[in-house]
Amino acid sequence: MTLYESLASDLELSIRNGTLRAGERMPSVRYTSRSRGVSLSTVYQAYYLLEARGLIRARERSGYFVAPAQKLPGEPARASRPTSEAVSLDVSDLILQILEGARVHDDAWFASAFPSPHLFPLPRLAQALQVASRSLRPEQILHDITPGSAELRRQIAIRYGADGLAVDADEVIVTNGALEALNLCLDAVTRPGDAVVIECPSFYGALQSLEARGLRAVQVATHPRDGVELDAMEAAILRHRPKACWMMTTFQNPLGTLMNPERKQALVDLLDRHQVPLIEDDVYAELYFTDQRPAPAKAYDRSGLVMHCSSFSKSLAPGFRVGWVAPGRFVSEVTRKKLSLNLGTSLPAQLALAEYLAHGGFDKHLRQMRTKLKNRQATLAQAVARQFPEGTTATQPQGGYQLWVELPEGYDALELYWQAAPHGVCFAPGPMFSPTRLFRNCMRLNYSGECGPEQEQGIELLGKLLQEQVAQGRSRREGAGLETA
Amino acid sequence: MTLYESLASDLELSIRNGTLRAGERMPSVRYTSRSRGVSLSTVYQAYYLLEARGLIRARERSGYFVAPAQKLPGEPARASRPTSEAVSLDVSDLILQILEGARVHDDAWFASAFPSPHLFPLPRLAQALQVASRSLRPEQILHDITPGSAELRRQIAIRYGADGLAVDADEVIVTNGALEALNLCLDAVTRPGDAVVIECPSFYGALQSLEARGLRAVQVATHPRDGVELDAMEAAILRHRPKACWMMTTFQNPLGTLMNPERKQALVDLLDRHQVPLIEDDVYAELYFTDQRPAPAKAYDRSGLVMHCSSFSKSLAPGFRVGWVAPGRFVSEVTRKKLSLNLGTSLPAQLALAEYLAHGGFDKHLRQMRTKLKNRQATLAQAVARQFPEGTTATQPQGGYQLWVELPEGYDALELYWQAAPHGVCFAPGPMFSPTRLFRNCMRLNYSGECGPEQEQGIELLGKLLQEQVAQGRSRREGAGLETA
Repeated sequence: MTLYESLASDLELSIRNGTLRAGERMPSVRYTSRSRGVSLSTVYQAYYLLEARGLIRARERSGYFVAPAQKLPGEPARASRPTSEAVSLDVSDLILQILEGARVHDDAWFASAFPSPHLFPLPRLAQALQVASRSLRPEQILHDITPGSAELRRQIAIRYGADGLAVDADEVIVTNGALEALNLCLDAVTRPGDAVVIECPSFYGALQSLEARGLRAVQVATHPRDGVELDAMEAAILRHRPKACWMMTTFQNPLGTLMNPERKQALVDLLDRHQVPLIEDDVYAELYFTDQRPAPAKAYDRSGLVMHCSSFSKSLAPGFRVGWVAPGRFVSEVTRKKLSLNLGTSLPAQLALAEYLAHGGFDKHLRQMRTKLKNRQATLAQAVARQFPEGTTATQPQGGYQLWVELPEGYDALELYWQAAPHGVCFAPGPMFSPTRLFRNCMRLNYSGECGPEQEQGIELLGKLLQEQVAQGRSRREGAGLETA
Repeated sequence: MTLYESLASDLELSIRNGTLRAGERMPSVRYTSRSRGVSLSTVYQAYYLLEARGLIRARERSGYFVAPAQKLPGEPARASRPTSEAVSLDVSDLILQILEGARVHDDAWFASAFPSPHLFPLPRLAQALQVASRSLRPEQILHDITPGSAELRRQIAIRYGADGLAVDADEVIVTNGALEALNLCLDAVTRPGDAVVIECPSFYGALQSLEARGLRAVQVATHPRDGVELDAMEAAILRHRPKACWMMTTFQNPLGTLMNPERKQALVDLLDRHQVPLIEDDVYAELYFTDQRPAPAKAYDRSGLVMHCSSFSKSLAPGFRVGWVAPGRFVSEVTRKKLSLNLGTSLPAQLALAEYLAHGGFDKHLRQMRTKLKNRQATLAQAVARQFPEGTTATQPQGGYQLWVELPEGYDALELYWQAAPHGVCFAPGPMFSPTRLFRNCMRLNYSGECGPEQEQGIELLGKLLQEQVAQGRSRREGAGLETA
């Protein structure tokens, strides 16, 4: 971040947290220059940037004023209505095409599945690695290779305990990221051809995993704010007799939905009645903006049917690839799958994380990260409200770092993706999140990155390209009209 | 190692490398005590140990003499004769039962799939980890997550080049150990129900992988010294149209077989004619006792059909779980499988290994490790010749750290396993290595551990239990005779 961007960020925070109120005059450029010890031109640049973001307004000869509170996009209000059939999957090619396209543009954070790595405490992690390196002893290097470092599993169990969940360290199996944990759970309870219940839309990684195993997907109607509809789920269970249900009950990817505790409880009871194992993907749980960590579905499980998967990749250290699963009654099956997949998880990363969890200040880091993410969500949502077509809606997740944007009918997010990607602006278009390629007018935007001028320009570009879609649609329709005339 | 064990090891080396020759008088106890700066009793203990190992003999009032060169067991001479059917697998339970049984006994190195961790340069690896920890930068932490650290892949490509193989860094995909690499290759080229050609006996990990995927195993006759019989392989290909062949052409697990270059070339040509991809498991290649590294089958591949899998787990750092694959024409398929399995491999371990490969002295470490392994093979083979029943044969691998022991017909290695395990003496019984549970009279012994009195006693115990098998068998036969009389 440049000096002026950093200053703008500070001032933005003061506006958002109410220190500077709507309608109030901003400190003068001269005063700010003196009080911050930066040049006049730096202050001007920062103010221009805040103006571009719609946060302040210039009045001729009177200086700058804080703009009225900004409009957020409306929230999407309708649940999805997927087919009630169990479908085979053929969506991997599209997903991979898009992921590979986005990979080229390292700065295009809107598309990423990860939080910006600038949010992570890398110096403290490096220190933890150095401590860990000193504990490499011959007796230890092969010990606990499956199911993972005893000390790390103990630390994970302690965190469960602090959140009110009774999960024993012996139930915890360390994996190479949460995705591997989820795949091991699928392998433990399904065989090719089985049906698996998923949300609609759902995480594209789940679609790839189902496709790779020859499983059939049963999509269940999902409301952007409330989560899956339990009546629809029960009907799906009775009709398709699924062998598993793969879900995110907390800050669902891509919707950001947080199911309320009563619905989580009802979900677990429903699955228990039909003896369907729940593979719970809970990777965003630490990134809540609520008062406390929302309890996962696992908290309501009394019969060991919930396989709770999570990781440190979203909250602390993506490159370490350390996740875990607490698979309830399936501990032995999952351990065996891990053993025959790749034996164990890399030891240095495990030891470093165990050390960091014990002494690194994880909770302090999380508090800072949550504040940043919450502010950035508001910034991005406001940019969407300014730049995107009238009628666009966006979720307002209470955690995580993804915004689900629904464009009015007729707009095409997949077409937009291919138009914008050459400019280095990427995002995750809606059809990635559905085996039947629904959500053509939707997109997922990652708001974890810096909210600098580059990002502002990115959203502006998307808005312009969407305007062109309208214009081209009109001219196509007119062209078609001429031909048929 | 205690002082006397260490002294015994040194003296054993002098005997094996010919510095002390058969029939020569050993340096006197008093002289050795002075020259080594150790107590008289330490020297006595070392000499007793060497005597127990059959390396020196005491002559009354004349001191110790180097014993005549010791007898090694004969080599097994017959190729296996498996069924020519393609079989479904149901052997995982047996394998896991044995692996879990052996895991309890940390010191029982005969059973292990890994070299003793005392052979690894852990302090130097710790140093490499510390250097790596300083290179954790936000820009880098998500970069190259698939297919792996660019620098590590470059180092791996350099090693290929040094061994005369033209493998580009872009072909290399870093995996969570070689087992994962092998599994990804299987996933890339097979579907449930397909036939896959394997050696007989073959690595139990391959059997688990085939079983987990619902693949059928086609076992091909394999000679302990020469490797798979190519006529039998061609017949199997014509009959079963396999989608892949999973093999180890260098120091095969469990036989230790090194196929000669002509046969490797002929194997690759044969597979090429029938367009069968070869999944080559080459994890032991660095542990050769020959003049130079044996070229893998990959070296003879002209059409990109050989998927070469290896790792650092057997030669350097098992707990790091870093392996790789150079999958020839299947790069894109394997990359995608990796992406949807677990995205990538742990970064700290990759960075540390890249640093170690560049500056750590890998080749020096390997030279020392090879010398130790070669000496330990001879020690264990001689112990087997002394303690096991007449007629026992054992392979004499030119690399690796596993001995394949064939007991005379009628002995039962699986029964022996359950008899010996409660005493803390474990090994890998033959039926683990066959989908049809052949090799009931065979076992694999790991010789990488220290050859101290404990290990000597372990082999002695196995020999005694085998004698009891004979006695019990005789009494059972007599009992049966009485009953039918």
